[in-house]
Amino acid sequence: EEAAPPPADTEDPFAGDPPRHPALRVNSQKPFNAEPPPELLTQSFLTPNELFFTRNHLPVPSVEPGSYRLLVEVPGGRSLSLSLAELRRRFPKHEVTATLQCAGNRRSEMSRVRPVKGLSWDIGAISTARWGGARLRDVLLAAGLGDKSGEWHVCFEGLDKDASGTRYGASIPLERAMSPQAEVILAYEMNGQELPRDHGFPLRVVVPGVVGARSVKWLRSVAVSPAESPSHWQQNDYKGFCPSVDWDSVDFRAAPAIQELPVQSAITEPRPGAAVPAGELTVKGYAWSGGGREVIRVDVSLDGGRTWREAELCPRPERGRAWAWALWELRAPVAAGARLELVCKAVDRSYNGQPEGVGGIWNLRGVLSNAWHRVPVTVTR
Amino acid sequence: EEAAPPPADTEDPFAGDPPRHPALRVNSQKPFNAEPPPELLTQSFLTPNELFFTRNHLPVPSVEPGSYRLLVEVPGGRSLSLSLAELRRRFPKHEVTATLQCAGNRRSEMSRVRPVKGLSWDIGAISTARWGGARLRDVLLAAGLGDKSGEWHVCFEGLDKDASGTRYGASIPLERAMSPQAEVILAYEMNGQELPRDHGFPLRVVVPGVVGARSVKWLRSVAVSPAESPSHWQQNDYKGFCPSVDWDSVDFRAAPAIQELPVQSAITEPRPGAAVPAGELTVKGYAWSGGGREVIRVDVSLDGGRTWREAELCPRPERGRAWAWALWELRAPVAAGARLELVCKAVDRSYNGQPEGVGGIWNLRGVLSNAWHRVPVTVTR
Ligand SMILES: [Mo]
Ligand SMILES: [Mo]
Repeated sequence: EEAAPPPADTEDPFAGDPPRHPALRVNSQKPFNAEPPPELLTQSFLTPNELFFTRNHLPVPSVEPGSYRLLVEVPGGRSLSLSLAELRRRFPKHEVTATLQCAGNRRSEMSRVRPVKGLSWDIGAISTARWGGARLRDVLLAAGLGDKSGEWHVCFEGLDKDASGTRYGASIPLERAMSPQAEVILAYEMNGQELPRDHGFPLRVVVPGVVGARSVKWLRSVAVSPAESPSHWQQNDYKGFCPSVDWDSVDFRAAPAIQELPVQSAITEPRPGAAVPAGELTVKGYAWSGGGREVIRVDVSLDGGRTWREAELCPRPERGRAWAWALWELRAPVAAGARLELVCKAVDRSYNGQPEGVGGIWNLRGVLSNAWHRVPVTVTR
Repeated sequence: EEAAPPPADTEDPFAGDPPRHPALRVNSQKPFNAEPPPELLTQSFLTPNELFFTRNHLPVPSVEPGSYRLLVEVPGGRSLSLSLAELRRRFPKHEVTATLQCAGNRRSEMSRVRPVKGLSWDIGAISTARWGGARLRDVLLAAGLGDKSGEWHVCFEGLDKDASGTRYGASIPLERAMSPQAEVILAYEMNGQELPRDHGFPLRVVVPGVVGARSVKWLRSVAVSPAESPSHWQQNDYKGFCPSVDWDSVDFRAAPAIQELPVQSAITEPRPGAAVPAGELTVKGYAWSGGGREVIRVDVSLDGGRTWREAELCPRPERGRAWAWALWELRAPVAAGARLELVCKAVDRSYNGQPEGVGGIWNLRGVLSNAWHRVPVTVTR
């Protein structure tokens, strides 16, 4: 048995990473992890590609599109190998507007209660795009997938790998992959453009309503399996635990892999600590929930949660499942000299809401951070 | 959830109501609304029929099963009239174990924060049964329902009516009715027995994962319609609002009718104010979530929510969607003389959890009361 060779000192595996927009706030350079500033986040319903939050686990692979092949494997030994041209030609293009959110969004607030392991995301590890590609369902049927009963999963593997050759991987339940309503696609377009390198060029999975970690980028293979992906990120990460669980007691087998995310919202304007002018204050933010559950209401408080007002939701551009966020706004008169604690919380179609504080949802990995978002501001005289 | 108009002086419209089990805690006699005592609630996974919580809006109709007909209407002027015998003969019996919960469960806790309108339910307006009947989907297809696009609803009407002849009614989206996975049935059996009169004899709807108000009892008719049920209980009740909305400002058109319910849990043993013996304390309760989202974890605190332990979930009897509750238990040593505040909170498959307090979810009708459940106890010396 030979150990994997250590990376050559002389060579930076991230040297081939693409250039990035200077406005992004970088949480980690290698691998690259960055979020847009909050006030840019809610400037448009669709996040511009160059500002879309980037969550890379590994170096960005360099893919030569002409020789790229996607491998699709279904039970019974059947498989399919598809070029990009074949993928575009053989399957109708399906478009879906979907928000992706990192499981670690708003982790920095959780760390303030007690330290957690992970990148210190502020509120910007969430973005929205219009994605275009082939339905995963159509591709699996073309590969010869028959009716399946019992528990099955669709495992995705990326072309991105570490120095030992281990690739990023994740899976979703087959039922979601095959549901026409779930709109899971293999995307080659993002907001009408070719997929950028940081977002999975030439092909990525987009699983609407589900944690971003399952929307595998730089997609290498798709395999239907009786078990979830064996990858670290499916088995030993991206799971939630009781606040009492620490790194000595954690048993990753005891919790299910995160798929659908809970209801979330945050205030993007004003920023914490801001001094705002007296008169009419405009509070802006986003709200979103997993599983296509539409945000039906956002409540905003100016007094730390004692009293509430209903924010105005920007009209939804589409009917049906709400895969995309709701942007919202509240205008309220504020008096000179006041110190306000702005708070927002959202309610989704299942009438689930957000927890008041971090204490009950704290977990050692700092995921699923969706407590009421609090922004203290002062009103200038 | 409003009381029926006063009955005519000369005749009690509730005179024909059936006898009830004496253990039930009655919140309203006419119409009859009652819940089982908490400690009986979690004594068995399936609630015995005579202890199942009863939520009647109107007098219980007396139905002669031999002459009963169900009317089914689908767009295009097609309709079907079915006797009970035909319903049993023409459609395969489908069985589903499902928990039903009243939207007003735990309302009494919400009233303590600020008064609300409605029956003062404790934690027992929730129960579980194995239901047997025809799939609504099969019945609608037999009535000639074709493919529908756009927004459609299935409206149910009961045989129960008030003095003016107004019948109970409610609706669900057609998509849920037609989804084989959603398992919506027209039930004539409850825990292997004929449906009891208080629970809808001879036929009721059972909509798993959805607020009890949509599972219309004493079913008279089913109609596919482009609009939701026009009934009071669909339009002007069973909706959630911002805590600031009062009876002067409420606009019932502004909120969607409750369908799937949020994640819920409660402690059934010990009872608030109990004196428990020193040594090993056993805490018991239930947890459930709407939409078939399995309860994946219940956290219990003995110190008001400062620290948490994970409860043991009784094994799920079935795979697939979790329409039924999870019963749970926690054993912990407790010292003589201690004053404990027991708290429970559940997490479901979408990693949604319960809110810490009532303040942020308070609403004028006292529905959707799912804050952390708190039970103060003292430990005897
Ligand atoms: Mo993530
Ligand atoms: Mo109810």
